[in-house]
Amino acid sequence: MGLRDEFGTIARYFAPLSAGAPGAFGLTNDAAVIPPDGEQGLVTTIDALVEGVHFLPDDPADLVARKLLRTNLSDLAAMGAKPESYLLTMALDKARDESWIASFAAGLAADQAQYAVVLLGGDTVSTPGPMTLSLAAFGRVPGQTVLERGTAKPGDSIYVSGTIGDGALGLLVRQSRLTGLAERDRAFLELRYRLPEPRTTLGPALLGLATACLDVSDGLVADLGHIAENSGLGVELRSDAIPLSEAAQTVLGDDPDLLPLLLTGGDDYELAFTLAPEDAGALEALARETGTAVTCIGRTVEAPGVVVLDRDARPLALAGSGWTHF
Amino acid sequence: MGLRDEFGTIARYFAPLSAGAPGAFGLTNDAAVIPPDGEQGLVTTIDALVEGVHFLPDDPADLVARKLLRTNLSDLAAMGAKPESYLLTMALDKARDESWIASFAAGLAADQAQYAVVLLGGDTVSTPGPMTLSLAAFGRVPGQTVLERGTAKPGDSIYVSGTIGDGALGLLVRQSRLTGLAERDRAFLELRYRLPEPRTTLGPALLGLATACLDVSDGLVADLGHIAENSGLGVELRSDAIPLSEAAQTVLGDDPDLLPLLLTGGDDYELAFTLAPEDAGALEALARETGTAVTCIGRTVEAPGVVVLDRDARPLALAGSGWTHF
Repeated sequence: MGLRDEFGTIARYFAPLSAGAPGAFGLTNDAAVIPPDGEQGLVTTIDALVEGVHFLPDDPADLVARKLLRTNLSDLAAMGAKPESYLLTMALDKARDESWIASFAAGLAADQAQYAVVLLGGDTVSTPGPMTLSLAAFGRVPGQTVLERGTAKPGDSIYVSGTIGDGALGLLVRQSRLTGLAERDRAFLELRYRLPEPRTTLGPALLGLATACLDVSDGLVADLGHIAENSGLGVELRSDAIPLSEAAQTVLGDDPDLLPLLLTGGDDYELAFTLAPEDAGALEALARETGTAVTCIGRTVEAPGVVVLDRDARPLALAGSGWTHF
Repeated sequence: MGLRDEFGTIARYFAPLSAGAPGAFGLTNDAAVIPPDGEQGLVTTIDALVEGVHFLPDDPADLVARKLLRTNLSDLAAMGAKPESYLLTMALDKARDESWIASFAAGLAADQAQYAVVLLGGDTVSTPGPMTLSLAAFGRVPGQTVLERGTAKPGDSIYVSGTIGDGALGLLVRQSRLTGLAERDRAFLELRYRLPEPRTTLGPALLGLATACLDVSDGLVADLGHIAENSGLGVELRSDAIPLSEAAQTVLGDDPDLLPLLLTGGDDYELAFTLAPEDAGALEALARETGTAVTCIGRTVEAPGVVVLDRDARPLALAGSGWTHF
């Protein structure tokens, strides 16, 4: 309610995105039906993005849409859930014209195809302020078993998927605060910031193997701090074990002082998880099967907190353990 | 992510609201689990509210919270679903201090007790602009059968619950555009605007009886237009049959020109529904059982559109058929 020609916009751009979900009723009803799927549990999460806080006003609409969806799919993956559907709210300012909405919907359509998810419903309203978006995503797990962040055991190995720090560097690139990069590295890092790749295959495969799991959105150190605190233990990382992309290695070669940023910056959307050391072989097999790189970066310890050791096993001083949005 | 002391705020004010839902994990994980409930279908809906558009900056925080929750419960009721749980996002400006958040959470707690719903998860972020809230609610229906808006039949009787137009008048009161009322009427109308009463008992009871249903949020005429258009028929209302509160009758007695506003204003959050004329007795029995007033206000006809007849059976001219937010 409230948006000019809300019904026309919904019918034209959003109703087609609900085509695969009979329970969405073509977005014509007050609500949507999610049918039961045997004994499978439904997992749900919600995130909000604010223009100027979580994305920039001139970010392409299709990438904003895809990042909004993907950050939620990353939350589902962190719980071991296979994504299925989503709800969307958009508070749009008057500057958003139909072409912006068309591009936004096209971004959603692309990711719906890539991740096999479908739009169930939503709400579009107008706002005098920055555009504000929220998305609630739904996924399935067999039974009620999910991956949690507070269930790591002492002596577990700590792993991350993919590479860490690209999102933080991509944001610097985007803000023109990191210049002089080769075009290939610049494009790679910016894309990693704008278009995270949620680990939707790895996450569900970790059910029954990982002892704890979350997605790295607030920064590796802060997020491992969540695992530590919620599990009642500590974590010890080896900085030289943390997997970096070629682009990040190049940047770090030029300016080694950026290491703390890589470890504490956000927007990685990789999975960080723990498992018993004896399950390392099973994990490696699974990583091959799912085509996802995983790297052991440390272990859980009894002393609380997060310690990062440098290559000489001396604790690194980290200015901040969390992430402050621009 | 992004709010100052997000984790402290969540632990202090929002985690207690999740106490009844084991699948919420005390709001410490990335997502929440909604367990299956036999063959019951899950119904879900999402709404966004923007400060200055859907509520006023000085509205009490507890009432803003309750209206946000209740508008979603009204959507569930319109589909025949019994409410169960919800997700919440809050984009908060810097002016919102801890007392505001405490009051907001207290409002949610009050309505959680009243409607037997529980918080499953959420996201709090900061915004430089107007506060923007979104809430996704979940409810249950037996099997996959829901009430829809596009399934009315020709010759059905049209009913509404409660009284119509109080929300629109309450907004005028709130904006100081309707003055000179007795204190009792003023307070009644303002409360009807600020704190709608979703028909969470009537809605589920209409399953299998009503042929179509929705909640009146855009205005009675516009919403019955949705039933008409989606059902491929028209509706004919008798203006003198539309149930008005004592306060609305008093206002209308002073200024009969306000009648179109009552019929087209929004924020009623009553149910409007259709049923076969021969089911009138069953509905009356059900209304008594659930303690909800229901009133027959017209019928469906073959000619498309919405016609409102005055007491002399002449069509009324209505300036607008929809609702423009202030």
